[in-house]
Amino acid sequence: MAEREEVKNKQVLFKNYVDGFPKESDMYVSTENTIRLKLPQGSNGVLVKNLVLSCDPFLLLLMRKSDHGGLFSCYTPDSPITGYGVAKILDSGNPKFKKGDLVWGITGFEEYSIITDAESLFKIEHTDVPLSYYTGILGMPGITAWAGFYEVSTPKKGETVFVSAASGAVGQLVGQFAKLMGCYVVGSAGSKEKNISVLINHFLVLLICFNGVSFVLVVDFLIVLTVTRYFPEGIDIYFDNVGGKMLDAVILNMRKHGRIALCGQISQYNLAEPEGVKNLLPLIHKGITMKGFTVFDYYNHYSKFLDILLPFIREGKIVYIEDVAEGLEKTPAAFVGLFSGRNIGKQVIVVSRE
Amino acid sequence: MAEREEVKNKQVLFKNYVDGFPKESDMYVSTENTIRLKLPQGSNGVLVKNLVLSCDPFLLLLMRKSDHGGLFSCYTPDSPITGYGVAKILDSGNPKFKKGDLVWGITGFEEYSIITDAESLFKIEHTDVPLSYYTGILGMPGITAWAGFYEVSTPKKGETVFVSAASGAVGQLVGQFAKLMGCYVVGSAGSKEKNISVLINHFLVLLICFNGVSFVLVVDFLIVLTVTRYFPEGIDIYFDNVGGKMLDAVILNMRKHGRIALCGQISQYNLAEPEGVKNLLPLIHKGITMKGFTVFDYYNHYSKFLDILLPFIREGKIVYIEDVAEGLEKTPAAFVGLFSGRNIGKQVIVVSRE
Repeated sequence: MAEREEVKNKQVLFKNYVDGFPKESDMYVSTENTIRLKLPQGSNGVLVKNLVLSCDPFLLLLMRKSDHGGLFSCYTPDSPITGYGVAKILDSGNPKFKKGDLVWGITGFEEYSIITDAESLFKIEHTDVPLSYYTGILGMPGITAWAGFYEVSTPKKGETVFVSAASGAVGQLVGQFAKLMGCYVVGSAGSKEKNISVLINHFLVLLICFNGVSFVLVVDFLIVLTVTRYFPEGIDIYFDNVGGKMLDAVILNMRKHGRIALCGQISQYNLAEPEGVKNLLPLIHKGITMKGFTVFDYYNHYSKFLDILLPFIREGKIVYIEDVAEGLEKTPAAFVGLFSGRNIGKQVIVVSRE
Repeated sequence: MAEREEVKNKQVLFKNYVDGFPKESDMYVSTENTIRLKLPQGSNGVLVKNLVLSCDPFLLLLMRKSDHGGLFSCYTPDSPITGYGVAKILDSGNPKFKKGDLVWGITGFEEYSIITDAESLFKIEHTDVPLSYYTGILGMPGITAWAGFYEVSTPKKGETVFVSAASGAVGQLVGQFAKLMGCYVVGSAGSKEKNISVLINHFLVLLICFNGVSFVLVVDFLIVLTVTRYFPEGIDIYFDNVGGKMLDAVILNMRKHGRIALCGQISQYNLAEPEGVKNLLPLIHKGITMKGFTVFDYYNHYSKFLDILLPFIREGKIVYIEDVAEGLEKTPAAFVGLFSGRNIGKQVIVVSRE
């Protein structure tokens, strides 16, 4: 019987803890392990076949030795890296799921995974949209963007909004949400060839347009000039995905009672020590609120979020750009590429189309 | 008639723009000017006799060449410095005030001032408390503490509260408000001999008690240890009056969904360039809100605030410590002393007792 047999399980394994930038050699692909396609007796987890995996910047934090404020556990060397993905249930010991169900949530970067914390998975009910969307617009980045914009930033029609990493998994949605709300919005984005630290030392030349959202490629001592140029009357909302020098510069151009949603700090993850943000005094003088948040506090709104997002997607009011790599083997390059701005849109890995 | 005559008007004049620490020689006392004790014809301002003047840290910002986010105007060399004070109306061109009224608000560091923006003054209705309180507990620092604690920090009974500069004009009130609400509260304070930058390099030995609020003298690489020691389970609310290294250290010890009220940054005002705050990533992981505020957004609550504070003072539930210097001549030393922690309690200058 096939379920008793062991099959090969291709995996992306973590090599060792990382300091600065991640390198492709911090992971390695192995086909040495096998797995039995049946859950062990008594398990209340699920056995899944992974279909789509998601390269998200926060995975780099799991490659660092730190307690991450108790939010994440670090990776273990020579174990598969983990992250968000879409998968199909092959066997379930949990009453919420049955064989054949599609789910999204934290899984392994491998062909097959046993997920013991099955309660953390979300069942996929709507399959008229691409499955990969559940790693992006309809998954963690989607609800991150939704919560960070609508809940954390308390936007009002006509306000001015600046989004950094605005072509990324989260940023591209924030820009479109802001447009839909009637805000003036400009986003900054890394360029294809330039890595973040280069981006942070060069000024932009380019203004591109993406579903109505203006994009600028920016930074460093010229950030302030750029920001001033595109926001002559200042910024009401800054949705910050990059942190560091960009945050420091944007604060100077915030308007009175502005709000800064701290979502991520991709410019800092590759540094041994974070850059300091110096311009905190204007937060006092202008009565600005800077609020950090994680998606974990907002997953309880997921069904409300789906009710809003699915019609937007079906009616084409929101578009979502993905950068699709085919095959688990592409993981190291795709992941490392995130930190050099190589991806255009949300980076996903297709493991299997079935 | 006396009103036609000119009288001597002793003044504290500003010398020139300041870089780092203020020095006594950045101001000078002059008795050369005279003033006629009658408003010019057609003025809608008021002429006042100054009774008590207030040495507040933010005055140092006015000694710097900067636009201060449009919030303040810098001082003009060889003009009197200005700040909060309590004064008696000698002549009024404004229907809100009449001769003999007591008021508090922005006035000059001099014996007599003409205040053109009379609308910014508050009339003093309750004189059963010391008049100097209207430069402190019942004035700008009082409503700052009240707004920053009750409105900005959204405290709940049983939460843990840390206050820096906790014996200062604002901090001593925040500590007592937190006690009254049933919070666990610890404050840090500068010592008599040590200036802030020394404070920021030495560890405390001392734990003092002040109307039920514990005080610690802290900082630098030992800040984290101290904060951990007094808050083994972390901090829910940090009321920040100092900024810089202290803020950086406290963030690391904040609890999930903690709130940081940014009220002032006295450790930074004497620096040519502010220190950077590096630990912003925990704001994201812990969902922490950091909110800057100024008292100007809360003056419309002043009568509500008085209704709460006056009974507290009369019943002795809140005490207020003042460091009283007698005579305008004491201004330069008293002001400079703020930045070396020389004052114990709120620093005021009594100009006249009549």
